[in-house]
Amino acid sequence: MKKNAEKKVNAVNAEEAGMTRYQDLSVEELESLRKELKQSYREYQNMDLNLDMSRGKPSLDQLDLSNGMMDALNSEADMYSSDGFDVRNYGVLGGIAEAKELLSDMMENNPDNIIIFGNSSLNVMYDSISRSYTHGVMGNTPWCKLDKIKWLCPVPGYDRHFAITEYFGIEMINVPMTEKGPDMDIVEKLVSSDESIKGIWCVPKYSNPQGYSYSDETVRRFARLKPAAKDFRIYWDNAYGMHHLYDHDQDYLIEILAECKRAGNPDLVYKFASTSKISFPGSGIASMATSLNNLEDIKKQMQYQTIGHDKVNQLRHVRFFEDIHGMVKHMMKHANIIRPKFEMIETVFEKNLEGLDIGSWTKPKGGYFISFETLPGCAKSVVDKCKKAGVKLTPAGATFPYHKDPEDSNIRIAPTYPPLEDLRIATELFCLVVKLVSVEKLLKEKTEGLSFCTV
Amino acid sequence: MKKNAEKKVNAVNAEEAGMTRYQDLSVEELESLRKELKQSYREYQNMDLNLDMSRGKPSLDQLDLSNGMMDALNSEADMYSSDGFDVRNYGVLGGIAEAKELLSDMMENNPDNIIIFGNSSLNVMYDSISRSYTHGVMGNTPWCKLDKIKWLCPVPGYDRHFAITEYFGIEMINVPMTEKGPDMDIVEKLVSSDESIKGIWCVPKYSNPQGYSYSDETVRRFARLKPAAKDFRIYWDNAYGMHHLYDHDQDYLIEILAECKRAGNPDLVYKFASTSKISFPGSGIASMATSLNNLEDIKKQMQYQTIGHDKVNQLRHVRFFEDIHGMVKHMMKHANIIRPKFEMIETVFEKNLEGLDIGSWTKPKGGYFISFETLPGCAKSVVDKCKKAGVKLTPAGATFPYHKDPEDSNIRIAPTYPPLEDLRIATELFCLVVKLVSVEKLLKEKTEGLSFCTV
Repeated sequence: MKKNAEKKVNAVNAEEAGMTRYQDLSVEELESLRKELKQSYREYQNMDLNLDMSRGKPSLDQLDLSNGMMDALNSEADMYSSDGFDVRNYGVLGGIAEAKELLSDMMENNPDNIIIFGNSSLNVMYDSISRSYTHGVMGNTPWCKLDKIKWLCPVPGYDRHFAITEYFGIEMINVPMTEKGPDMDIVEKLVSSDESIKGIWCVPKYSNPQGYSYSDETVRRFARLKPAAKDFRIYWDNAYGMHHLYDHDQDYLIEILAECKRAGNPDLVYKFASTSKISFPGSGIASMATSLNNLEDIKKQMQYQTIGHDKVNQLRHVRFFEDIHGMVKHMMKHANIIRPKFEMIETVFEKNLEGLDIGSWTKPKGGYFISFETLPGCAKSVVDKCKKAGVKLTPAGATFPYHKDPEDSNIRIAPTYPPLEDLRIATELFCLVVKLVSVEKLLKEKTEGLSFCTV
Repeated sequence: MKKNAEKKVNAVNAEEAGMTRYQDLSVEELESLRKELKQSYREYQNMDLNLDMSRGKPSLDQLDLSNGMMDALNSEADMYSSDGFDVRNYGVLGGIAEAKELLSDMMENNPDNIIIFGNSSLNVMYDSISRSYTHGVMGNTPWCKLDKIKWLCPVPGYDRHFAITEYFGIEMINVPMTEKGPDMDIVEKLVSSDESIKGIWCVPKYSNPQGYSYSDETVRRFARLKPAAKDFRIYWDNAYGMHHLYDHDQDYLIEILAECKRAGNPDLVYKFASTSKISFPGSGIASMATSLNNLEDIKKQMQYQTIGHDKVNQLRHVRFFEDIHGMVKHMMKHANIIRPKFEMIETVFEKNLEGLDIGSWTKPKGGYFISFETLPGCAKSVVDKCKKAGVKLTPAGATFPYHKDPEDSNIRIAPTYPPLEDLRIATELFCLVVKLVSVEKLLKEKTEGLSFCTV
């Protein structure tokens, strides 16, 4: 696996950059700077901006890439799957053969280990937890009959993951993310010692929000976990498996199902993916890959829930992409649209913030997000001030369970949706606001003689 | 509401029909008849039939009716909903405006009372029970925290309904169906006296399997139920609301949500429907209509489960049908295909079975099924013998909770899927088998002096 050597760019040495670190400024200098920044901020406010950098949504030109899918099936089309089913009628619980093949190529798994679901992998994750809650995992006690269920949450992470576990009253335990993935010392210790820990949320590739990819070592250690709970499962949300920014400079992961099998833990993982950010969000197809034992357990429940998912849409996807190579080519078109946005943000961050020591940011090679770390205690204020100038960001705290960022420092930047030029304005405003809030924090510290983040 | 005066055709008086009731035959006559029937049965067995009358599946020519839907959206199409959403992107949890309008016209409800879901109303029903089980209904105790949950099941009924409640360990109580709907004396008594009864399965129009429609009186009494449990809900599965066999001779029901509101019980009902047997089974759109209070309760949960359902497919449906009148015209095309099948079966039943007093059958004006009552203790044997001659029927017992038909007499006939001529052969075989099994039963009774159905 290639390492992501430079993902986290800490503000470089101030002298090298020829800029002064804000904390080295005097109170007078800070006050003068604040005045200047406030003036610029007011100018932005007068621009009546209305920009949304809050969610990982594809842009309109990304959506246009898949418009051809609307022609992939017409009224004259052959509506039979390769395994002989009329996709227009009832049945085929696990998905048609060619959709299994395409998505198994996408997920790097055997088609026999795949179930094709409906339009949302989030829904599949919710249903998996719900099923475990009502009926248990492989004959183990249903979670609703247990006093306490806990879950590991690498932080920062995906807010919709945390929302599901919170909704089911599951106690969430923060595990720090590193550039190589979750801190595995902590994961191993907790998972092996506490039977009430039943799962962990993972976005292993181009993680949400940092864009980190798990190292070989991390994947190997995941596959070798020795959970105290027999019904512990890794929720491996491979949301960005195909979502590279660059054609050659990509992250590769060890495939987790294969590694679990090799490690003698074949049933340890539920792996999720979907075409939501490949074809159309909300009108794609979702999938789960897992061991045959797990599949049997899941299908036993699924047969009560549905007669089958949308096979017409499955066929439409296969007819459009043709095969995994077609999908790879399609993803390069996405990359060509997204890449300039990520690169522009990086450039604007460097130009405006490097050397000031008031923030750091990640440089992902794929995925949908950049993660920004403000000085402690500043994230909420930055998001709030951006909002007041017409730029909507993901709420501060959203990347943590219970919306509680203990440092109040993490902000998720979602570059994909706005057009490039809008995004440039929003990013410049963001930098300005980071400066303003940082100056105010430093001023307060210097004048009050204490750090307001600890108040 | 029009009454279904002649739905259940009991064998007419033997003398009028010029036929002899089997039970009036002597042992010798029965033995001779058995020999003759067995000979005919063997001839069918030699035909190597392979016909499926087991499930309520549309036929191929019915599916062809909706092929035009594949052209309703192409790569040049305007992909914005009437309320301004790009249907290709994330969002719009409850469904796009025009889909709500179409389905609310279909369901006879206000668009504000509607949520559009994914491809399966069965899935919506499952999820509703699952949600009640994990989180409770409107702040009431989640069912998983209660010792005992019970459910009323009008019988015969829909096997997939019963399967869901059985899967959740809910105790199912049989309530006899009548031509006017469930026996409301029993329903009222049980619902008002037992707090552990949390729901009832209803297929109010062209019921599965009998094709009965609830009378005005029945709907009125449902709307006026006084459940002991605050979280009791009527699961009103309006699966066949548009599925008439005749243009003029249709059943009309009092709309249940409106009646509940008038009766001061606005939150009593969850009403379900889908386009599964209108457009494509498994690739249609499903919907729930209920009170605003219930909707709020449901959406609170849904937001954790999904970002939204397939809006492209919602738009595709509206563009294809245009409006409710378009859908009505479309349903007449279905009727033109289905009607001859229902009428043929009726004719073959009359010709072969009338006057023999060995079976009765329903004559629905819509829906997907005919219900057949054999002599007590004969249904399993009839289904089994049909299977051995190459005709697959819904398993006997499937129309009852726990697959237990106490009389072993109900058989669900699903006429839609096979082509007409295949269906005719299958129906003739069915009649022959009913005769054969009935003769054997009567012979056994006469020679052993006791009824084997009670053994």
